[in-house]
Amino acid sequence: MTEVDFDTHPKRYRHWRLDVDGEVATVSLAVDEHGGLVPGYDLKMNSYDLGVDIELYDAVQRLRFQHPEVKAVVMTGGLDRMFCAGANIRMLAQSSHAWKVNFCKFTNETRNGIEDATDHSGQTWLAAVNGTAAGGGYELALACEEIVLVDDGSSTVSLPEVPLLGVLPGTGGLTRVVDKRHVRKDRADLFATKAEGYRGDTAVQWGLVDATVPKRDWDEEIGRRAHQAAARSTRSGSRGVELTPLGRTVDGDTLRYPFVTATLDRDARRVDVTVEGPTDAPPADAAGVLAQGVDYWPFAVTRALDDLVLRLRTNEPLLGTWVVRTHGDTDLVLAYDAQLADLAGDWFVNEVHHYYKRTVKRLDVTSRSLIAVIEPGSCFTGLLLELALACDRQYMLEGVYEDVDPAADPATITLTASNDGAFPMGNGLSRLASRFWGHDDDLEGARKLLGERLDAHAAEEAGLVTMALDDIDFEDEIRIVLEERASLSPDALTGMEANHRFVGPETVETKIFGRLTAWQNWIFVRPNASGPDGALRRYGSGQRGDYDYKRV
Amino acid sequence: MTEVDFDTHPKRYRHWRLDVDGEVATVSLAVDEHGGLVPGYDLKMNSYDLGVDIELYDAVQRLRFQHPEVKAVVMTGGLDRMFCAGANIRMLAQSSHAWKVNFCKFTNETRNGIEDATDHSGQTWLAAVNGTAAGGGYELALACEEIVLVDDGSSTVSLPEVPLLGVLPGTGGLTRVVDKRHVRKDRADLFATKAEGYRGDTAVQWGLVDATVPKRDWDEEIGRRAHQAAARSTRSGSRGVELTPLGRTVDGDTLRYPFVTATLDRDARRVDVTVEGPTDAPPADAAGVLAQGVDYWPFAVTRALDDLVLRLRTNEPLLGTWVVRTHGDTDLVLAYDAQLADLAGDWFVNEVHHYYKRTVKRLDVTSRSLIAVIEPGSCFTGLLLELALACDRQYMLEGVYEDVDPAADPATITLTASNDGAFPMGNGLSRLASRFWGHDDDLEGARKLLGERLDAHAAEEAGLVTMALDDIDFEDEIRIVLEERASLSPDALTGMEANHRFVGPETVETKIFGRLTAWQNWIFVRPNASGPDGALRRYGSGQRGDYDYKRV
Repeated sequence: MTEVDFDTHPKRYRHWRLDVDGEVATVSLAVDEHGGLVPGYDLKMNSYDLGVDIELYDAVQRLRFQHPEVKAVVMTGGLDRMFCAGANIRMLAQSSHAWKVNFCKFTNETRNGIEDATDHSGQTWLAAVNGTAAGGGYELALACEEIVLVDDGSSTVSLPEVPLLGVLPGTGGLTRVVDKRHVRKDRADLFATKAEGYRGDTAVQWGLVDATVPKRDWDEEIGRRAHQAAARSTRSGSRGVELTPLGRTVDGDTLRYPFVTATLDRDARRVDVTVEGPTDAPPADAAGVLAQGVDYWPFAVTRALDDLVLRLRTNEPLLGTWVVRTHGDTDLVLAYDAQLADLAGDWFVNEVHHYYKRTVKRLDVTSRSLIAVIEPGSCFTGLLLELALACDRQYMLEGVYEDVDPAADPATITLTASNDGAFPMGNGLSRLASRFWGHDDDLEGARKLLGERLDAHAAEEAGLVTMALDDIDFEDEIRIVLEERASLSPDALTGMEANHRFVGPETVETKIFGRLTAWQNWIFVRPNASGPDGALRRYGSGQRGDYDYKRV
Repeated sequence: MTEVDFDTHPKRYRHWRLDVDGEVATVSLAVDEHGGLVPGYDLKMNSYDLGVDIELYDAVQRLRFQHPEVKAVVMTGGLDRMFCAGANIRMLAQSSHAWKVNFCKFTNETRNGIEDATDHSGQTWLAAVNGTAAGGGYELALACEEIVLVDDGSSTVSLPEVPLLGVLPGTGGLTRVVDKRHVRKDRADLFATKAEGYRGDTAVQWGLVDATVPKRDWDEEIGRRAHQAAARSTRSGSRGVELTPLGRTVDGDTLRYPFVTATLDRDARRVDVTVEGPTDAPPADAAGVLAQGVDYWPFAVTRALDDLVLRLRTNEPLLGTWVVRTHGDTDLVLAYDAQLADLAGDWFVNEVHHYYKRTVKRLDVTSRSLIAVIEPGSCFTGLLLELALACDRQYMLEGVYEDVDPAADPATITLTASNDGAFPMGNGLSRLASRFWGHDDDLEGARKLLGERLDAHAAEEAGLVTMALDDIDFEDEIRIVLEERASLSPDALTGMEANHRFVGPETVETKIFGRLTAWQNWIFVRPNASGPDGALRRYGSGQRGDYDYKRV
């Protein structure tokens, strides 16, 4: 399998163009047909593969961090009459199931990131659909706050996956149509079964788009709407933070970033991740934070974790268990944790905050077993404790490793306001509320412990760790747990973890990852889609899928 | 494929025993090993197949209708040391994917029916787990309001599907553990990966069971709890209604019941269902209703629809589209509709009401395309209009069929309180609120029309039908719609419909059908479970599954 790299830069984009004009930016899609990430397909008609979406993700991030002045973003097509044809079908047809699923996950996260920019950055995205938006192309538009469709007599929006490919839209289409845009279910049914889609009054009346605009008024109307959105923004800040290349080094099976190290154990099918706490006290004020830029500890940690999660998910599917540790000074972590809250009104700190939120949310939907190990020297505090709470289990050493460092301080964990709603999961719950779902007393009890250093006994009492063991049992237990985990069916674990991690309410986001994705997974592997005569494999051959019509 | 029959009677049960002792009934599971529904497996250790669950469903229904005096139901095991081992693994291993999924759907509905009896009939179910409850066995217990586990030093509760079979619990286990019983997610993770399960203090402390009781106190404690639950009940009524055999006749491809007819068109892969309205005015009072018993029109219609839905789902997987029509006198339907509301306090009317609710909910989770056709002579009114609103689309003729009966009255539909919350979907929404999700004005507008006869134009204006067409276009349109529908991928349609039908909030019930089932579907078809070396196929051979460890 090709090793995928998520680093890029606007100067290296092959598919998108990023133009900034004062408070309005424009991202234009003009896919290089010959720029596919792997060989075997041409990216015709502005269709995309993972490489195209990696550039879009980079653009979304740069707009947030490098461009505090940008308050509205127009997404548009750079080809004639074709906004975007969605995911490339030949790419899908030749890809493994794991690749397809991981690709959909990343594109979903990028779409959610666009909505997050609109909701939390005062950067409103507007889809200027200046040609046909089909399938994933329309799903791109659905992630934007407004959708304007050109009225040229031919351009439509459509979700042709069901009628043409025998699969579901892979990036939230069905859910966003009914749950975000509130299209009536019978109309959604008509829409999702009509390959050619809709345009004009019907598209507006049903809520598929917000407006249609003739070509002659196009530029003026899009500009008017973009500036209107910008006028509503409270985004502030004048100087951005340049996203310089990550300081990532690879040394055999060890990946090193500033503050994050990952060691890959291929025999055990495991990754050991260690996050380092800060080495210095935080800067005195927002100006100092901005001056540090990419070196600001919470930002550096987030960038490293984000890249690591994406690389491991895409490139290392066999490493099914991630063990998460931290190492550092609890006081310093607490100081940064408090600063993120204190300076929440600052644009850059706000961006760091939401970026960390999005990054931990990636863990929630990662199809790997996540185990937190809490030992002496660790600093699972506030925002870093969120990493442990995102894990499926938390193991904490009671006391110290007598044969390693008997004089060490035993591990503690510390809850802060960061654990009580600052970094919500996709379902809107804090990880603490999710943990104590249905046990309000336990949640209230935990809230009373904010700021206290909890040793293993206290942490176990408060329900914050799965198990606290002394060093006689600890190492054996961890070894057995990891061996057992590695022996189980990876599919069953993925399904089980997805169900346990999202208790309680559901949102558009969790429905997309939890319900829609699971249906899509199933449909993707069925012979009606992916078999030799399935619709996905036959697409473009002039033959329709040859279906077994049995309903399941 | 074997044609499955859902008719049974306690005298014919091979697997369950139903004993009624005053206000407490006991249902005991002692599976006849040699009583499998199809050949090829022995139902050892109180494991079950569809036939076992058909008997349980019959018992649940009889307790509600025949036994108004029963206020608590004890579910227990009739074998030594084994409450229930769950679904039979050899049965699963030899079954087609469609069979497994439909089997899980029916068992889920029966479990939900047990919860419905507890919530809406004052008939509280109590699981007296007098031996090991594994997998589906524990899921049976999870459907009960209380779970008491015998403390005999060996009996446990467990969900061994992930570690032993490489699949997920198929009947809501994961969801009920975290969302209903509020087991902390890391403990749920430990539980669902530990094949042997838990017992004793751990099981109680984690919330897996409510209590453990030693053998010597068993009968007394179970009796005490059952009578305590009964004492809380407000259930009334002294004489039950005997569930006599359904008057179903089969005439070639036509199934006839009192008030319901279904015509199977195998070439078109379609079923045409017609529900007849009542022929007489409703009885004067609750005593009159009870005297009619199974002949009471709403009850007769419900029993017929329930049986029809179950038979078609199980026996006719190739008939992918169901077209729903009604025929009858709107005034009479309105009179019955009003009576169900007026006599809501009567135990029998309450039972009929909730049975109809459960039956329409079966439609919501039926993996068939549902199309309502509204023509002159129809009576889509109140409770019958729910059938149309459950459909994916509603087509209404404007005017009359000029060449058939030019003098006919054009069709109308009528909203009543029945459409505004009396028959909620599994997500708690009325079908009307679901239809207008995100459009509160339209919902309020529809509410203003309660009781009015809406012709095609008015119905379309109010957003209650997908399309209103005159007879020049109507027949052509319906023909094209049905032909197109029949040509699409059945898997994609199933996933699409499941997503469109459940907009807005989620509950334990919708999570089980929508999210958990979809994951299970996918995992069931993966080689790691169902391939020649998969865990499900190898179970019992002494060999574990041979897994491809790639995470997806």
